[in-house]
Amino acid sequence: MPGTSKLDGLVVVLVRPRNPLNIGAAARAMSNFGAHRLRLVNPYRIAFREARSAVGALALLRNAEEFDGVAGAVADCSAVVGTTAVRNRTLQHPLRALSEDAGDAIRKQLQSGRVALLFGSEKIGLTNEDFSHCHWLLHIPTIEEHISMNLGQAVAVCLYELARDKSLRDPVSDKIEPATAGQNEQITAGLLEALHASGYVKPGNDAMVDKKVRRLILRLSLQTIDAKVFLGMVRQIVWKLRQG
Amino acid sequence: MPGTSKLDGLVVVLVRPRNPLNIGAAARAMSNFGAHRLRLVNPYRIAFREARSAVGALALLRNAEEFDGVAGAVADCSAVVGTTAVRNRTLQHPLRALSEDAGDAIRKQLQSGRVALLFGSEKIGLTNEDFSHCHWLLHIPTIEEHISMNLGQAVAVCLYELARDKSLRDPVSDKIEPATAGQNEQITAGLLEALHASGYVKPGNDAMVDKKVRRLILRLSLQTIDAKVFLGMVRQIVWKLRQG
Repeated sequence: MPGTSKLDGLVVVLVRPRNPLNIGAAARAMSNFGAHRLRLVNPYRIAFREARSAVGALALLRNAEEFDGVAGAVADCSAVVGTTAVRNRTLQHPLRALSEDAGDAIRKQLQSGRVALLFGSEKIGLTNEDFSHCHWLLHIPTIEEHISMNLGQAVAVCLYELARDKSLRDPVSDKIEPATAGQNEQITAGLLEALHASGYVKPGNDAMVDKKVRRLILRLSLQTIDAKVFLGMVRQIVWKLRQG
Repeated sequence: MPGTSKLDGLVVVLVRPRNPLNIGAAARAMSNFGAHRLRLVNPYRIAFREARSAVGALALLRNAEEFDGVAGAVADCSAVVGTTAVRNRTLQHPLRALSEDAGDAIRKQLQSGRVALLFGSEKIGLTNEDFSHCHWLLHIPTIEEHISMNLGQAVAVCLYELARDKSLRDPVSDKIEPATAGQNEQITAGLLEALHASGYVKPGNDAMVDKKVRRLILRLSLQTIDAKVFLGMVRQIVWKLRQG
């Protein structure tokens, strides 16, 4: 179990969830992103602790705490954030779209205390009474025509954003070693020979094909590893064409 | 229906999905974030089109297209990105973490053609054979101890990142039109024929060379204009080798 995760202090609160599959899915997403405090306010059914959708997160689910009301579920949290699909309801609360900025705000609050993130029931979401416990509200920026997300998916998307590691750089970019001009030249020469031997080059268009091949090879921006493979192929083909 | 969404050109490909609920959930997430092209490669069951988990996305699900293989499902796409939970397998492909940068890369490619985003089956994900159709791979940055995400949640998280609205966007400087998967496939087939005819392929290493060539061609990231030139050259060489 955790201990070092950035989301140790995050409390995911599902308010009146109805579908055990969704509870399990929420638990699984928490496990994926390193959150482990799950709380349930008046879950509709109680047979959720074995939910098959909680792949890899059964322990988390078994440790989930149940509460009779939102107040109890967020009592030890220094910030309470409610999620909502609705954007144009006359909300009494500050409303932010999920984004790197909103994530930053929550990450900052996590440095000084627990933060509760509330998700409402599948059917109606959070009520105004639930909102009254929240410091601010969060919506996931879906398209206007279809704002209602599946509960498990909404939890996954929020936690993905909260777990975002900005220090994370692409490990690929530094591993690319471009082919040298010499390697490109060898391939160009080989390919030209194959084109001559195969009749692609017609009398009088030598210079044009030469330029065409050279430009093609340069535009490929070959990596060293690929250049070697490619050169081996071209040479074998040239060898065979010479036999013929 | 769509028409204006930034993700119009995105093709979500589920490869051998087993659970209709997950297919429905993927459709729902697509609908939330404005993607609408769903393709299925050998779905395990076919009773998915009415999946109850596709709340608000039944039309999208009914319009899903079925294919017998990955090649057909991505034929009209100029970029193919595979998703994987695995990070330390000796991958032959560039691997990037889902992030704003990775999202930028895909959004940029969407400006010039369709992009396929592949998700593997719930049990085993994408295979090496599936990977051989991909230009690069993407993983969702989960915690190390629990890297395996639910399929519907993985789709939701990826689409959330891709739909991210950065109002400040740089217009693409020049118009690069990438080769389609179909064009790449033609070149691959031609080159393979030349390698067979020239003796590059030895008995028993067919599969290895096949994979090698496919990966090489994908990594070249050919533009349409270069693909045509290259294909012409390869075809002439094949013709000559056949004569010999």
